Amino acid sequence: VEGQKNKDLKELLDEFHYADIAEILDELNLEQAIYVIKLLDSETTSDILTELDEDIREKVLKNLSDKEIAEEVEELDTDDAVDIIQELPEERQQEVIEQIEDEEHKEEIKELLTYEDGTAGALMAKELVKVYETWTVAGCLRKIRAQAEEVTRVHSIYVVTKEEKLIGRLSLKNLITAKNEQKIADIYISNVDYVTVDEEDEEVAKVMAKYDLEAIPVVDENKKLLGRITIDDIVDLLKEEAEKDYQLAAGITQDVDSDDSILELTRARLPWLFLGLIGGIGAFIIMEGFQESFNHYKVLFFFTPLIAAMAGNVGVQSSAIIVQGLANDDVKGSINSRLFKEMLLAALNGLILAFFLFLFVWVTKGEVNTAFAISVSLVAVIIVAGLIGTFVPLFLDKRGIDPAIATGPFITTSNDILGILLYFWIAKLILGI
Amino acid sequence: VEGQKNKDLKELLDEFHYADIAEILDELNLEQAIYVIKLLDSETTSDILTELDEDIREKVLKNLSDKEIAEEVEELDTDDAVDIIQELPEERQQEVIEQIEDEEHKEEIKELLTYEDGTAGALMAKELVKVYETWTVAGCLRKIRAQAEEVTRVHSIYVVTKEEKLIGRLSLKNLITAKNEQKIADIYISNVDYVTVDEEDEEVAKVMAKYDLEAIPVVDENKKLLGRITIDDIVDLLKEEAEKDYQLAAGITQDVDSDDSILELTRARLPWLFLGLIGGIGAFIIMEGFQESFNHYKVLFFFTPLIAAMAGNVGVQSSAIIVQGLANDDVKGSINSRLFKEMLLAALNGLILAFFLFLFVWVTKGEVNTAFAISVSLVAVIIVAGLIGTFVPLFLDKRGIDPAIATGPFITTSNDILGILLYFWIAKLILGI
Repeated sequence: VEGQKNKDLKELLDEFHYADIAEILDELNLEQAIYVIKLLDSETTSDILTELDEDIREKVLKNLSDKEIAEEVEELDTDDAVDIIQELPEERQQEVIEQIEDEEHKEEIKELLTYEDGTAGALMAKELVKVYETWTVAGCLRKIRAQAEEVTRVHSIYVVTKEEKLIGRLSLKNLITAKNEQKIADIYISNVDYVTVDEEDEEVAKVMAKYDLEAIPVVDENKKLLGRITIDDIVDLLKEEAEKDYQLAAGITQDVDSDDSILELTRARLPWLFLGLIGGIGAFIIMEGFQESFNHYKVLFFFTPLIAAMAGNVGVQSSAIIVQGLANDDVKGSINSRLFKEMLLAALNGLILAFFLFLFVWVTKGEVNTAFAISVSLVAVIIVAGLIGTFVPLFLDKRGIDPAIATGPFITTSNDILGILLYFWIAKLILGI
Repeated sequence: VEGQKNKDLKELLDEFHYADIAEILDELNLEQAIYVIKLLDSETTSDILTELDEDIREKVLKNLSDKEIAEEVEELDTDDAVDIIQELPEERQQEVIEQIEDEEHKEEIKELLTYEDGTAGALMAKELVKVYETWTVAGCLRKIRAQAEEVTRVHSIYVVTKEEKLIGRLSLKNLITAKNEQKIADIYISNVDYVTVDEEDEEVAKVMAKYDLEAIPVVDENKKLLGRITIDDIVDLLKEEAEKDYQLAAGITQDVDSDDSILELTRARLPWLFLGLIGGIGAFIIMEGFQESFNHYKVLFFFTPLIAAMAGNVGVQSSAIIVQGLANDDVKGSINSRLFKEMLLAALNGLILAFFLFLFVWVTKGEVNTAFAISVSLVAVIIVAGLIGTFVPLFLDKRGIDPAIATGPFITTSNDILGILLYFWIAKLILGI
């Protein structure tokens, strides 16, 4: 990068897709990245900005003036423009917006900024092609040509009444195959899927995936057409959601990736490890408490890692299935019937595993009583772990809390402690001490 | 369902979207589902079939004749048709294909069946709109009207040479805004993204997500246009991949959901639990081996669940970050530099946690030596667990094995055993026994 002349470099980069340039910039140092961005024209750089890694974009934006950012934002669709502006500190947001020259664009961005994060409103763009039911096909084609200039991709054409109320849709295909003098009112398709502006974004993703939609119009409570959401934003959303759930299941709190700094990674990982530490200390206290009772059955202590591991594994498995079922909306039936099914399942798994454990202890230690006590405890621990793994995410979901936090370290730790407690308690009962 | 008259029912269902009918059928028993399917016309039922739950679809297909399936398949786009046919037993596939009346559709389906699962070829559909570079805009619009009848949604129009070689694309927008007498050769966009037919499907998803594409053409090694892949298939693919990774991380081998039978769920869950059982027995053997050495330091045994839990958690965290980085293609740099970074990270986390553990043991037990031994071991265990968690997925990935199997029970179990072994070994060294 350094050595080349500006013009050569510019020509070279003009050949690339903006997503590729963004990838290259992610690799450069900040100074170089800003140099390249200032070199290219704002139509390309604005697209590059949307594709940059978040950390790097933040730094680049810091090094651009309000005016420069406003110019970039001006080139973008409203939804991408809002994403960029939202990453700026509060006080800069206002200043950048004021610098936007296109009044319409400015108003639209201001409107989009008012919608709450995580709703359809925050995902949608104002750019869309709409036609009034009273227009003719020929008039329509003329107007669409003008509107389409501003819209990167035409998915559907939305048909509205003169009060801007959404009443249907048209595809370009319909328009092309219709006769010029026909009225839109006669040819539009009244069957149109839509979402309201305060719908949750995950819900929007479900609707679009279910009906294989590539764009969906967004309306207010009076069905007034406000904007549209396109599938590329949904693809990004799905990827983010999947990553978030995966990280939560692995015990990582914040959104980090492998290239983040050690400090950031520590912040994301340490809280769950602390939870594990407290769980481990809990297990220690339990084991110490049972120390006296089992003077003659020391062997029991050597199985605590096994018991803890099984309780943790079963808990994670059952909670993962519930979390996934909730995400796909296919957890049906009552909580009780779920718990009953999990109980049967855990009992079956537990009996099979306990049988092998019994054989192992019996053969190697020759103590039938101990073997029996350990095996029965294992079955009980597995059943309880399965029930907790099933119940906790269902309970959290009912309370409106993301059930994904129930998988991973949270379930593992609580099941560890409870499993060990139950294990010693049952063993004590069976061995009659 | 039972009580209603056929006609009423049919009218009622005609109002619904096929994806909704599929959801209703998923809830009915088999007999009722087949009854409804036979009631509706094949255009709707074929779409319903593609949306049905896999298990139920299998049963429904068993109850339809070859002829009936062929009729359903005839109504579908080639990619969906192939999906249905592939679910049939080998011998029935041939028979159903022979019953397809439309020769072109039949040949296309046969071609698609030859592509390997997991490649672009297996994802693509033959339906697309293509124009030859020599055509004029007016001629083009005429031909497109005819081709578009067969294609559910027109995304892009692909421009080919007379040898069928892909050379560019056109949007309907371009066509509408161009003059009638212009040649396609003069107005097409030569900059077109494409994938080859043997590209991996995950790679296709990455390309489409990166460039925000809604459809991508598929070509052979000579750039001959073979088909196209649409974003709705990619959305399904992304969801499946995310679910698979999530389930693997939770220790669930097969693709199951919460409504599957207890036997299916057992088959998916038991293998990992067995692994846990073997790990637990390993831990037992280690602890028994150290039994004699620690007669005076019994307290050490009570910390094994803590050590195992920490080793497991750290391993899962570090492997999850690597697995996710690999999936997003942003794991850069050598394995050694990764391991070095993880070592620093784990050491930092380990020191912080060990400090608190030291305080706890020191204050409650009053034994500085024991507290020191346990804390130092904890740091070592965390570092080793982090290194293993980082190394194993990188190693698997290099070998072409899905690194996702490295997270979850696999890493947890191996880290449990290794952690406990290391713990006793270091403690023994420090306490000088």
